[in-house]
Amino acid sequence: MTLIDGKMTAAAIKEEIKAEVDQRIAAGQKRPHLAAVLVGHDGGSEAYVKNKVIACEKCGFKSSLIRLDEDTTEEQLLDCIRGLNNDPDVDGFIVQLPLPKHIDEQRVINVIDYRKDVDGIHPVNAGRMALGLPCFISATPLGIITLLQRYQIPTSGKKCVVLGRSNIVGKPMAQLMLQKNYGDSTVTVCHSHSATLKDECRAADIIIAAIGRPDFVTADMVKEGAVVIDVGTTRVPDANSKTGFRLNGDVKFNEVAPKCEYITPVPGGVGPMTICSLMKNTLAAAKKEIYSN
Amino acid sequence: MTLIDGKMTAAAIKEEIKAEVDQRIAAGQKRPHLAAVLVGHDGGSEAYVKNKVIACEKCGFKSSLIRLDEDTTEEQLLDCIRGLNNDPDVDGFIVQLPLPKHIDEQRVINVIDYRKDVDGIHPVNAGRMALGLPCFISATPLGIITLLQRYQIPTSGKKCVVLGRSNIVGKPMAQLMLQKNYGDSTVTVCHSHSATLKDECRAADIIIAAIGRPDFVTADMVKEGAVVIDVGTTRVPDANSKTGFRLNGDVKFNEVAPKCEYITPVPGGVGPMTICSLMKNTLAAAKKEIYSN
Repeated sequence: MTLIDGKMTAAAIKEEIKAEVDQRIAAGQKRPHLAAVLVGHDGGSEAYVKNKVIACEKCGFKSSLIRLDEDTTEEQLLDCIRGLNNDPDVDGFIVQLPLPKHIDEQRVINVIDYRKDVDGIHPVNAGRMALGLPCFISATPLGIITLLQRYQIPTSGKKCVVLGRSNIVGKPMAQLMLQKNYGDSTVTVCHSHSATLKDECRAADIIIAAIGRPDFVTADMVKEGAVVIDVGTTRVPDANSKTGFRLNGDVKFNEVAPKCEYITPVPGGVGPMTICSLMKNTLAAAKKEIYSN
Repeated sequence: MTLIDGKMTAAAIKEEIKAEVDQRIAAGQKRPHLAAVLVGHDGGSEAYVKNKVIACEKCGFKSSLIRLDEDTTEEQLLDCIRGLNNDPDVDGFIVQLPLPKHIDEQRVINVIDYRKDVDGIHPVNAGRMALGLPCFISATPLGIITLLQRYQIPTSGKKCVVLGRSNIVGKPMAQLMLQKNYGDSTVTVCHSHSATLKDECRAADIIIAAIGRPDFVTADMVKEGAVVIDVGTTRVPDANSKTGFRLNGDVKFNEVAPKCEYITPVPGGVGPMTICSLMKNTLAAAKKEIYSN
């Protein structure tokens, strides 16, 4: 059994990005610039945004954090986004989700210039990914694909089961694993209504669990030699932890791991790769690799 | 075994559309208007476009056919499309594919106003479908979903295997079958590189074959009581036919049909539903049901 080390992989990729940025600066090019918009003071969002700012520093990017009050109106937020769309210094930006309930999230997403949508959540990027065209791929699926590639895990023709059908993980993950240029796998998506979920898992060469239910995948659901990628990060109470909780994956790690050829831990598996993917997308935006204008 | 009659279903839907159009005209509203752009003189394309014009007549739509020479430049075609985008009388339009080789198809598609993209091929519509947002769904997948609904075939929680991963059938079909609002199935997509394709098919409650290989699905690949949807329409030589060929599906009908609870024939199954879906989308465009402006 090999433990897939997302933390180490993410650190290595950020160093590669930093080296490339340094070269670009030395050649007189502009420093990549990622902006983040944070509305309100949600604790989880504060932490995520803070980690993104730290990652920008590691990669040699300029970062801007725009804080808006909890009671910001939708129109004020849209104006802020239009400003970022039109700011030639900003290569990419993210709007930290979730937004306060009085704001229509989809309406906000639709206003983001897809050429600066480094989170890959705008319909144009989702559509271009579905169609196999160059695009910003959303961060978690891109991170998982990157892990599979770095660990040279064979995926072509393999049976890959994705658990969960969310817009930000399950669905794009399935599409990437399906495409000839990425996974090239036989892909099955299971969800809460799937009658044959356990059978599908038992037949899988690769399981990607993104269902948000702690310890959902048990040893009896995994075949010997499988590759298991755990996207779950549910906070569960833990008296032994200083914070009073710990992050728990969707996979019952202790009993599943011995059967696996490869498995990601939680934390330290998929999680660190997500921000790293955002950095990759920001560099690609600065280089105009995907959209030339 | 029940034969799913696409021809009859499509005719019934076109009558329903006609009745609604008549009501709208009586209420003083504008007649829905579908335009089609045909570049060159490909025999297949000529026939498809002709059938679309006939369907428009049946539905009470206005139709326009814009014919451009085989040697039309990409820029001339783009100008034509921009004209249709800006023509307030045109509710929706299609650009008949394939285009001559000197024209970049994707570039042409990107210029179509997604609010008039009744073929559902623009990235915005593909993306909105992936995200589960209202959109124009491409014609063949929408036709198949409509057939399943009209025949009240249960799909929720069932195992659905899609054979083929094309952008216009396999991929969008898989997405529709996955979504809670449509199929809500456990969905597996198989393709030419799938090692376990036959096993997947044998376990399937529903098989949707869109792989373009005549008689590919044989009786040993189908379980008793399965639902089989055949999207294949390969022209194969046939000395007994007046035209010298016949349309052959992806399913070996004679041996598979006896095992099925439901099956679509070729021709007369999925085929007639495709144009019918285009008519549904055009009516929706005229009613501004999906995009309000």
